[in-house]
Amino acid sequence: MVSRSFLVIIICLSLLTGQAQNKILVFQSDFGLKDGAVSAMKGVAMGVSADLKIFDLTHEIPAFNIWEAAYRLQQTAQYWPVGTVFVSVVDPGVGSQRKSVVLKTKSGYFFVTPDNGTLTLIAESMGIAEIREIDETKNRRQGSSESYTFHGRDVYAYTGARLASGTISFEEVGPKLPARVVTIDYQKPVFENGVIKGDIPILDIQYGNVWTNIDGNTFKQLNVNHGDSVTVTIYHSKQKVYSARLPFETTFSAVAIGKPLAYLNSLLNLSFALNQGSFSAKYKIYSGPDWSVEVKK
Amino acid sequence: MVSRSFLVIIICLSLLTGQAQNKILVFQSDFGLKDGAVSAMKGVAMGVSADLKIFDLTHEIPAFNIWEAAYRLQQTAQYWPVGTVFVSVVDPGVGSQRKSVVLKTKSGYFFVTPDNGTLTLIAESMGIAEIREIDETKNRRQGSSESYTFHGRDVYAYTGARLASGTISFEEVGPKLPARVVTIDYQKPVFENGVIKGDIPILDIQYGNVWTNIDGNTFKQLNVNHGDSVTVTIYHSKQKVYSARLPFETTFSAVAIGKPLAYLNSLLNLSFALNQGSFSAKYKIYSGPDWSVEVKK
Amino acid sequence: MVSRSFLVIIICLSLLTGQAQNKILVFQSDFGLKDGAVSAMKGVAMGVSADLKIFDLTHEIPAFNIWEAAYRLQQTAQYWPVGTVFVSVVDPGVGSQRKSVVLKTKSGYFFVTPDNGTLTLIAESMGIAEIREIDETKNRRQGSSESYTFHGRDVYAYTGARLASGTISFEEVGPKLPARVVTIDYQKPVFENGVIKGDIPILDIQYGNVWTNIDGNTFKQLNVNHGDSVTVTIYHSKQKVYSARLPFETTFSAVAIGKPLAYLNSLLNLSFALNQGSFSAKYKIYSGPDWSVEVKK
Repeated sequence: MVSRSFLVIIICLSLLTGQAQNKILVFQSDFGLKDGAVSAMKGVAMGVSADLKIFDLTHEIPAFNIWEAAYRLQQTAQYWPVGTVFVSVVDPGVGSQRKSVVLKTKSGYFFVTPDNGTLTLIAESMGIAEIREIDETKNRRQGSSESYTFHGRDVYAYTGARLASGTISFEEVGPKLPARVVTIDYQKPVFENGVIKGDIPILDIQYGNVWTNIDGNTFKQLNVNHGDSVTVTIYHSKQKVYSARLPFETTFSAVAIGKPLAYLNSLLNLSFALNQGSFSAKYKIYSGPDWSVEVKK
Repeated sequence: MVSRSFLVIIICLSLLTGQAQNKILVFQSDFGLKDGAVSAMKGVAMGVSADLKIFDLTHEIPAFNIWEAAYRLQQTAQYWPVGTVFVSVVDPGVGSQRKSVVLKTKSGYFFVTPDNGTLTLIAESMGIAEIREIDETKNRRQGSSESYTFHGRDVYAYTGARLASGTISFEEVGPKLPARVVTIDYQKPVFENGVIKGDIPILDIQYGNVWTNIDGNTFKQLNVNHGDSVTVTIYHSKQKVYSARLPFETTFSAVAIGKPLAYLNSLLNLSFALNQGSFSAKYKIYSGPDWSVEVKK
Repeated sequence: MVSRSFLVIIICLSLLTGQAQNKILVFQSDFGLKDGAVSAMKGVAMGVSADLKIFDLTHEIPAFNIWEAAYRLQQTAQYWPVGTVFVSVVDPGVGSQRKSVVLKTKSGYFFVTPDNGTLTLIAESMGIAEIREIDETKNRRQGSSESYTFHGRDVYAYTGARLASGTISFEEVGPKLPARVVTIDYQKPVFENGVIKGDIPILDIQYGNVWTNIDGNTFKQLNVNHGDSVTVTIYHSKQKVYSARLPFETTFSAVAIGKPLAYLNSLLNLSFALNQGSFSAKYKIYSGPDWSVEVKK
């Protein structure tokens, strides 16, 4: 009876705080799926605990593209249950002085990663509850001491698995760091003088849709209703490369096949698409910090 | 004791009907694996129930290719245990008037999808036990009301997870619809006057093998034995593009490396291949409704 | 109490031998992820036992490339827990006389595969405890007797699932064979007269790094310290195609962006890379038995 009461208390505490690890481990990397690197990380994790539920975010981050790693985490983490542990390994500076950290958000998600900019957007949108540096004297796979280059497997996957499975607590990751992360500069959305400015952080590359960082609340300041049109101008390195009036619609099929529209994407950010076509390919619009956008009525 | 008896009865009923959900959830889409869209669907599903066993069919359906979505479901579903729930999201008409449905087959599989032709082949081969329209007032992820475009995540993945986990019964999906689906027209295999006609619904694209829709039973009417040859003629838009005598074999290695053969593929449909080569690439043969085939002795 | 003691004994025996199956099943193939073939294998496995934990090594082995299948198994298996069952289906001779086997290693891993060279490196590095031929009269999916070509699904996935789940013991796979496998010839690393010779079995293709088969212990015989340089010469079909002095470093960031280095990769084999670039693409260096390497001080 004592042990059952104890169990109930533990469960209640977990539910109250909503921040305990939940045995779910989600991997992201730029390793691709053509060799055994991702599989080795999962093997190490299963060796830590066979109770883990292991998933992927993506392993097709372009090599060394920290910005895209940051973006994919922000785009996706919120749809997983609170307590999920994400391991993100996009690490051009492997072996350099970047720190290996675990960030716990205010909402109770965990991110295991090199602190190289990957945490830029998660820190901003979810807020930092606490950051700890991974103590590799304790949280490094046994037998890996001679291996210089595969931190993804021997430190990040291993620590992520230990944390997600409850083998270690968040405190046992290592010493607490100041609550700030290495960040990447980017243009935030602004509304002034009747014009919204923003950038194109990413393409919806499977379909060729163009996603801006102009969120629904900023866009609302233009007072545009569904069915209205807006003037969209796109710049590459400050050169104008596209300008047109686009209808603002809720569904792609509101316009004819092949025609462009503006809409709010699944993240509720302003986006541009062709109905059943590739806006990006047709108008040669790509993504990154040198692509900016202006929108007005 | 009462509750245990009750449990036994439930289990027996499940075994007898063979049609209860089995906690297995299999996703198919045209989203690709380069961004977070597939991961977000799985995150939503794990938020519904951490007991789910989540798998993929494929996420590399060519964008908007409903025919291929239909074909992959038919090709694969039968190898999963009865009770498996499939979520297929290939949805060029997202937001239009196509219905969001769950089809239950006579054998007890479930398919969650827009009713846009995706169910053409499953309905034909497995038979419709019942179709229900998803009631989005109940079966839609909380907090998703402002999101106009990602039905895959907020409706299909969410409903599929609730159904597969037993959170809702099939009846709780929504109102019953007439037992018919939107279908895509295609040429069925026929045998007349000593000639079999059919089409090429799909390529075995990893190897470049050409798969026809001529099933083993139709082919048997030609009375061809292993080791015999057949005359194969392939047409594109009714223009003859290939004609040759091919040996009908049980194994690729029955012919020399690089040589063509006819065989029954893993679905027992008549197919053409090169031993260790690509029939499709060598002879420029592709798939779709405008590719047809004639076979005679 | 009796049953509990029995359970404890069983668990202790498992821990002592370290060689029982552990319900983990890892698939490798050259099927790609664009069709339903991989999904069908997993469906068959789940039909055998819903308790299995199913993972992938890779399905992007180049078509019919047995050497790469062998290499990926060797690279990855060791990171999974002892008792894991691997199913590898790269099978250019499907239907020919190659045997279908299960190899148990001395360390207690299991490999289910056609014996066509796929086991070359695993047999060498892990050692053969015992090999058994799959008895297809018992270990073949019911209803698959008419299907001539998909051994991957009907024999290998099915047998692997039965073995991993404990449905059958290793002995029940089929009759014991002599403890040897079909092997692929390749140049092993040697050190003589101050020169190390080896080959390039594989590229780290996501990044374009060149991995040799020169292991850390062989390399140590050159007495090179970190920061020292070595002369690296690469031959294609015995023609010299690259020669340069490269610094031997522990981290990529020890050299300027775009500059080459030598290092020990995650398998502790000598490798060549550019810091944030593709060594393979820049110098047109690829992999296979016709690519060899010489290294001296």
